[in-house]
Amino acid sequence: MFTTSILVRFGDLDAAGIAYYPNLVNFLHEALEDFFVGHVGRSYPEVFGGGLGSPTVKVEMEFLSPVRYGDQVRIGVVVEHIGRTSLRVRYEGEVEGRPVFRARNTMVIVDMKTFRPTPIPDWLRARFEAAREA
Amino acid sequence: MFTTSILVRFGDLDAAGIAYYPNLVNFLHEALEDFFVGHVGRSYPEVFGGGLGSPTVKVEMEFLSPVRYGDQVRIGVVVEHIGRTSLRVRYEGEVEGRPVFRARNTMVIVDMKTFRPTPIPDWLRARFEAAREA
Amino acid sequence: MFTTSILVRFGDLDAAGIAYYPNLVNFLHEALEDFFVGHVGRSYPEVFGGGLGSPTVKVEMEFLSPVRYGDQVRIGVVVEHIGRTSLRVRYEGEVEGRPVFRARNTMVIVDMKTFRPTPIPDWLRARFEAAREA
Amino acid sequence: MFTTSILVRFGDLDAAGIAYYPNLVNFLHEALEDFFVGHVGRSYPEVFGGGLGSPTVKVEMEFLSPVRYGDQVRIGVVVEHIGRTSLRVRYEGEVEGRPVFRARNTMVIVDMKTFRPTPIPDWLRARFEAAREA
Repeated sequence: MFTTSILVRFGDLDAAGIAYYPNLVNFLHEALEDFFVGHVGRSYPEVFGGGLGSPTVKVEMEFLSPVRYGDQVRIGVVVEHIGRTSLRVRYEGEVEGRPVFRARNTMVIVDMKTFRPTPIPDWLRARFEAAREA
Repeated sequence: MFTTSILVRFGDLDAAGIAYYPNLVNFLHEALEDFFVGHVGRSYPEVFGGGLGSPTVKVEMEFLSPVRYGDQVRIGVVVEHIGRTSLRVRYEGEVEGRPVFRARNTMVIVDMKTFRPTPIPDWLRARFEAAREA
Repeated sequence: MFTTSILVRFGDLDAAGIAYYPNLVNFLHEALEDFFVGHVGRSYPEVFGGGLGSPTVKVEMEFLSPVRYGDQVRIGVVVEHIGRTSLRVRYEGEVEGRPVFRARNTMVIVDMKTFRPTPIPDWLRARFEAAREA
Repeated sequence: MFTTSILVRFGDLDAAGIAYYPNLVNFLHEALEDFFVGHVGRSYPEVFGGGLGSPTVKVEMEFLSPVRYGDQVRIGVVVEHIGRTSLRVRYEGEVEGRPVFRARNTMVIVDMKTFRPTPIPDWLRARFEAAREA
């Protein structure tokens, strides 16, 4: 499984001193960016910049345990499902072995001119397949 | 149904020129804050400040249509379920009558000293009941 | 003087329960956006979208008093200086008459193709002149 | 000079595809946090958590060159001035040797109960002195 690690910053905290949950949703995107660099082999804006986009159409996220300042959140990224024009990715976050969140994100690949779904290019599909759950 | 309206700012956009989805998750919290001021009758930090907290344990959000700069997102807030120590809220976002997202958030009321679930105070439960789905 | 009002949200707070200062810098941009809609008469991305950009080259900001949850920050926007290709804007923030910050931002108008300074279009210069300090 | 490195993320970009300047102001705080961990030897919230706070009273920042997705911004942190109750820090950001920003931040050390200035504790002053400009 591809994994990356993201540090919890002061700006991620809320007034209760724990990570504000919308900021943890942002961690999912950061983990996806690392997945593109580290696994796909091209950066996210490089892939989704010219003509293609990948808007999120659905996100589900469970928060299992508080995330605190200075935590290094280790995030596993797994491709769960690859459709013709869509992709579902699962994220598993943990801090020192303690699960802190799990999430699922469905993206649709779109042509940015029309904002309509378009088939995932073959080269990209192959990279997603290689990160697919066994 | 309690509704509020939130303006999409330049800082909410991503490099594709549409609202970055973690920023829309933040809109849910802003709508909840408006619900506390406008419906509950006490501000969110006033209620969840002293000894009580309300960490989100689950969020699900579907993005139905792109949200753009300058959009006024009208957000309806409905209490879907009230447990002994938890609360599930539904959010429906639209821009000029066009649905742009729907979401569901489950919070648990906790004692901030122990971070353990604690019963929703009666006065607060009564306010949640009054915002419950018919 | 053009003035607007921005509400301090839960997500703007830091772990000490006051507004996190980089979020108040974002308030400057939000006030500028309101200035474009309310004074210039065209939205910020409408003006700086096609071929023109307005990168900030310098910002100075003094924080005079803590800003707290629920504060409505009233922000005055004054054009201090209009150069051939640049603009300096002053911001004055207050909460219920108490000054909370003052700031100055210098922007350069650039051609987005080359990212080089380009003269401010006459129609826009005229709008800036009309917001100039007496 | 203490230096750290911060990666520019998709969420840091604006609709023009370059880093949104309030997000770069946040980079200053992240660099300060790294300075506390790496140089001071105790984390920022550990030092400014219990009874002490360090509100920023002034920030000045110049943006010298656009910062783009995927840039690793190398940030140097220098203590410029240590007063009885205040601290001025300078930041120098560069991307592959190209200067992208320089900034200066003045903080006041306060007693969080009264929010009034309080002398910098000796042990902390000694750490700041050790990071002082030659």
